[in-house]
Amino acid sequence: MSTRAPFMNTEYSGYYHRDVPKENEELTHVGPNTPCGEYLRRFWQPVAYSDELTDLPKKLRIMGEDLVIYRDFGGNVGLLELHCAHRGTSLEYGLVSQCGIRCCYHGWLFDRNGAILETPGEPADSTLKDRLFQGAYPIHESNGLIFTYMGPPENRPHFPLYDSMIRPGYKMMPGQSYILPCNWLQVAENSMDPVHTSFLHTIVTGSQFTDEFGVIPELEYVETPSGMVYVAGRRVGNNVWIRMVDNVHPNMQQVAPVWENGRDVHPFDGPMMTRWIVPIDDEKTMLIELRHISEEDEVTPAWWADGTMLPAQVPISDSLEEQQRQPGDYEAQTSQRSIAVHGLEHLGATDRGVIVYRRQIRQGIQAVKEGRDPLGLSPSADIPIPTFSNDEVVEARRGATPVEEVKLIKDIGHRLIEEYIEDPPNLRHLK
Amino acid sequence: MSTRAPFMNTEYSGYYHRDVPKENEELTHVGPNTPCGEYLRRFWQPVAYSDELTDLPKKLRIMGEDLVIYRDFGGNVGLLELHCAHRGTSLEYGLVSQCGIRCCYHGWLFDRNGAILETPGEPADSTLKDRLFQGAYPIHESNGLIFTYMGPPENRPHFPLYDSMIRPGYKMMPGQSYILPCNWLQVAENSMDPVHTSFLHTIVTGSQFTDEFGVIPELEYVETPSGMVYVAGRRVGNNVWIRMVDNVHPNMQQVAPVWENGRDVHPFDGPMMTRWIVPIDDEKTMLIELRHISEEDEVTPAWWADGTMLPAQVPISDSLEEQQRQPGDYEAQTSQRSIAVHGLEHLGATDRGVIVYRRQIRQGIQAVKEGRDPLGLSPSADIPIPTFSNDEVVEARRGATPVEEVKLIKDIGHRLIEEYIEDPPNLRHLK
Amino acid sequence: MSTRAPFMNTEYSGYYHRDVPKENEELTHVGPNTPCGEYLRRFWQPVAYSDELTDLPKKLRIMGEDLVIYRDFGGNVGLLELHCAHRGTSLEYGLVSQCGIRCCYHGWLFDRNGAILETPGEPADSTLKDRLFQGAYPIHESNGLIFTYMGPPENRPHFPLYDSMIRPGYKMMPGQSYILPCNWLQVAENSMDPVHTSFLHTIVTGSQFTDEFGVIPELEYVETPSGMVYVAGRRVGNNVWIRMVDNVHPNMQQVAPVWENGRDVHPFDGPMMTRWIVPIDDEKTMLIELRHISEEDEVTPAWWADGTMLPAQVPISDSLEEQQRQPGDYEAQTSQRSIAVHGLEHLGATDRGVIVYRRQIRQGIQAVKEGRDPLGLSPSADIPIPTFSNDEVVEARRGATPVEEVKLIKDIGHRLIEEYIEDPPNLRHLK
Repeated sequence: MSTRAPFMNTEYSGYYHRDVPKENEELTHVGPNTPCGEYLRRFWQPVAYSDELTDLPKKLRIMGEDLVIYRDFGGNVGLLELHCAHRGTSLEYGLVSQCGIRCCYHGWLFDRNGAILETPGEPADSTLKDRLFQGAYPIHESNGLIFTYMGPPENRPHFPLYDSMIRPGYKMMPGQSYILPCNWLQVAENSMDPVHTSFLHTIVTGSQFTDEFGVIPELEYVETPSGMVYVAGRRVGNNVWIRMVDNVHPNMQQVAPVWENGRDVHPFDGPMMTRWIVPIDDEKTMLIELRHISEEDEVTPAWWADGTMLPAQVPISDSLEEQQRQPGDYEAQTSQRSIAVHGLEHLGATDRGVIVYRRQIRQGIQAVKEGRDPLGLSPSADIPIPTFSNDEVVEARRGATPVEEVKLIKDIGHRLIEEYIEDPPNLRHLK
Repeated sequence: MSTRAPFMNTEYSGYYHRDVPKENEELTHVGPNTPCGEYLRRFWQPVAYSDELTDLPKKLRIMGEDLVIYRDFGGNVGLLELHCAHRGTSLEYGLVSQCGIRCCYHGWLFDRNGAILETPGEPADSTLKDRLFQGAYPIHESNGLIFTYMGPPENRPHFPLYDSMIRPGYKMMPGQSYILPCNWLQVAENSMDPVHTSFLHTIVTGSQFTDEFGVIPELEYVETPSGMVYVAGRRVGNNVWIRMVDNVHPNMQQVAPVWENGRDVHPFDGPMMTRWIVPIDDEKTMLIELRHISEEDEVTPAWWADGTMLPAQVPISDSLEEQQRQPGDYEAQTSQRSIAVHGLEHLGATDRGVIVYRRQIRQGIQAVKEGRDPLGLSPSADIPIPTFSNDEVVEARRGATPVEEVKLIKDIGHRLIEEYIEDPPNLRHLK
Repeated sequence: MSTRAPFMNTEYSGYYHRDVPKENEELTHVGPNTPCGEYLRRFWQPVAYSDELTDLPKKLRIMGEDLVIYRDFGGNVGLLELHCAHRGTSLEYGLVSQCGIRCCYHGWLFDRNGAILETPGEPADSTLKDRLFQGAYPIHESNGLIFTYMGPPENRPHFPLYDSMIRPGYKMMPGQSYILPCNWLQVAENSMDPVHTSFLHTIVTGSQFTDEFGVIPELEYVETPSGMVYVAGRRVGNNVWIRMVDNVHPNMQQVAPVWENGRDVHPFDGPMMTRWIVPIDDEKTMLIELRHISEEDEVTPAWWADGTMLPAQVPISDSLEEQQRQPGDYEAQTSQRSIAVHGLEHLGATDRGVIVYRRQIRQGIQAVKEGRDPLGLSPSADIPIPTFSNDEVVEARRGATPVEEVKLIKDIGHRLIEEYIEDPPNLRHLK
């Protein structure tokens, strides 16, 4: 656990608040043999887009491990330890082959499971290649993304099927990946903090999303079978707009459409994006996303379907002045320090989502430590896991008093999430 | 204390002189809770020029602490801990407001004393903002410079008034600030080492100042009520030119005009510049200066009044070759290593000023350690502190022998500094 | 010794192979007081080309020591500790003088043996300069290279004379020096690994040398009085081509001509290059070379005599893609990590040369540790040390069976190296 700095209750007290406690290692460190690293490794993690694999191998760093990924000319994808088992030369300089990848230095040829197919300089009767394996991780390719499982082989879970990805009328499209120079957790927990949406993305810089995001919503945080959602309720004219965003165990998010404005009544509409927050190492994080694109005209905005970046995720330019004038998620999150220091925070009501999310992570870590399965593992390759991200807009007359109005909005949100959990909307088409 | 390397007394002895002792931590480390850091924090320190504050906040690092400075639209300057007390986002991305600065992430608004004026996402009845403070340091603006006091609040001294800054006929003008990638001490002690002026600034590179600086002067180092001066006496024709430079406790300097040549007899004329050597951290130092500009024509050279950089303070160009051909203070000081290693030095007669200055710093550190006030604190906001930097040129017939000539020059210097300390020239106009 | 990672004998076993053992410190660390550093310091090491010394001094870093080298206007070369014995200013900014180098800060003047010739600011009767020395190392200039000896002064060996450098009909020409961002050992051992030549330099990228290098040779590794050679035998038509490359104690190499193709019968022809692998520090290495150029026309190719870089030693361009498509020694060696980790290697038959070379280094280290002279010290300044690098091509009818053919090639190689050791070809002209 991190230590806490003292609570400052006098003016001009900088002198008493200079010591910077250490980060919360348990929740933030992701390397091999760290509590959180072992927890995250119990899940399939996306590491690259399919179309990033050309005739050249690609170096990757995932949770502090140096790896190389390639697709051989036979079409199979391999994810191997970066350094050749022979003498340590990087397979980034290897030759992608018909089957496997060949080290440039002495020509050892590795298959995707780590088997050594050839050791050309060794005597014909050498058995080394039959006994030794290069470190390798299994691969699963899906929707244009390449996933790997980096946990203990005996615990490899089924590849998860999320109900939002098989919605009729929608196709999944690989989106953008980008890198933030900070710890994964401060990126991941941001989505359970919708107040920042009302502020950072609206008040500060002018509306990065729709104007309606500028109203701070009535909020509830609800644990679901697959993780948690926030339920944000806002009044828009005669309507109540209920927005839900999912954090799915342990580092996947589903975001409801940011182009929603709550003006037109409509039922559950599902997410615009599924996104994974993948640690590169303790101080660097990759975001990698799938976009949910409607096959119907004019449902998904053109900018989203054509691959345009979601606003505010990366700096607006290289100019510090422009970043200061238009900060977004990138500036807000990365400037929390390379690893945010929990011992210096003062969490309030707006941070309830963050608190719940950290508790879920801590519970997952604890389960793995104790040899139990963490929540969120896929029970089967065929049974879709329900998720809940969506916007829904209902007509509802305004409450007579401010207090009643708040209660009314919260009740609608509460009723909807209970209905969804009972009867997941994304699964109804399967019945 | 640092350890000493062995004294090498044989030729080709590199092999026996390879171990690099550690730096003298006591005098060089400046972070929170270090001996020297706590000593320097007992004094007001300049951190920025007034005109650097625009409608955007500015990130600062002072003595290893990360801070943000801003001037709000109400005109008040605040100097706060860089990271927001809520979730740690950098206030460098904050919004300067009518009163205070607002964090970009969730909109918390901080006043210059660290008070929290608003926490917009929190419930109306939240008392957090009434109990909690952001770390803050007090500010004093003077002569276009912004000073802060970063020591224990209960020990905050009066803001010092130096007599040289209220000389009739002179105005104070903000000058240049620049950064050296090395420890503060090796920069600060350079001014108590006038032999380097005769060498580095004259012999090596051709005259960076006047030709007369090329003569190694007769030197004395004298402790004064406000710090110390060197007294440098040189023969110029029928004149003796006495030059004094101040080191004022603990890290302020006053430099006599570098355009002096000693050819014309004149009385005490005061400094051309007051300069502070402010540690950014252990291995980075900011120089920040005020220029003393005469209101009379042709007293202060135009290049000094128009803001031109003092020669030799920064590299002449990006080319290593040009730096090698024309080294200045920058190259001489920064190349003493990022923190000069006292255990490798061999101090001689030329270093008496450095020895005295280090002893004064050590005494100040010791006082603070023992709970006493260090020398140099301002006793009152209204009583000017006497300082002594100046050039004075007197007519004096040459001594009959070299020995008598040396004695004669030294005696003149000695007499002058005794007179000045007795009756500070910069204060005479107040009588 | 380094620890070993577990031997992986199952597929997809990345999870069990994540821990990276420490490097083998004994063989790789080169700073003062390290086992290997002290061993390497018992030999003369080249540090610069003569023509790199101009009227400006040059900063060097050799085996973790910061030094300055210069040639004074009297023509003498000095190699001194970088930082001035007075106050530590870098002599890189010093003034090269008629005799010695002068510090820019206070003008101390140092001679090449470290003697202090002048301390201009000190009193006339100061004896400091007569007692104190700047750290210095002795210099030997030879064939356009400047060598130094950085070991214990009492153990300074004779400057070695290698027989290959006094071959009639050949002149020595300074070549290229270049820097690899990795440890010295993985660079040095590469030359005892001829299988990589058959692979990296031929199969992977198309022939960087001649096509004949693409055949993996029959190999033997033989310890010689001056170090070791590999003996590589290849069939070329009716000929057997025997190639030998020297590693001379402890970090010198002699490479046989890379333009050899084995098609024409010829006797022992000597090296094309002598090269030293000089550690800058643990993670940076300088290669510095002499080229052996025939005085006869059309023996040495024009590209070699005109200073063109040997292929594959440095990246082909700044583009990662081009480096991936055409990796050479640079990519293969530097990507073994900044210090290759022996505990992760799996050495095979192709690595016998590396194994022998490491054993020789370990024996040399052990000798120095025990106070004995390591092998390879020059016994006399006048007696040439025999070396053996060369190509020789003999006519030989092909063996009746593959097994006999292998034996035949090996026997020829074995016979030749035994003859050479018995009667060193480079010395025959002296008889």
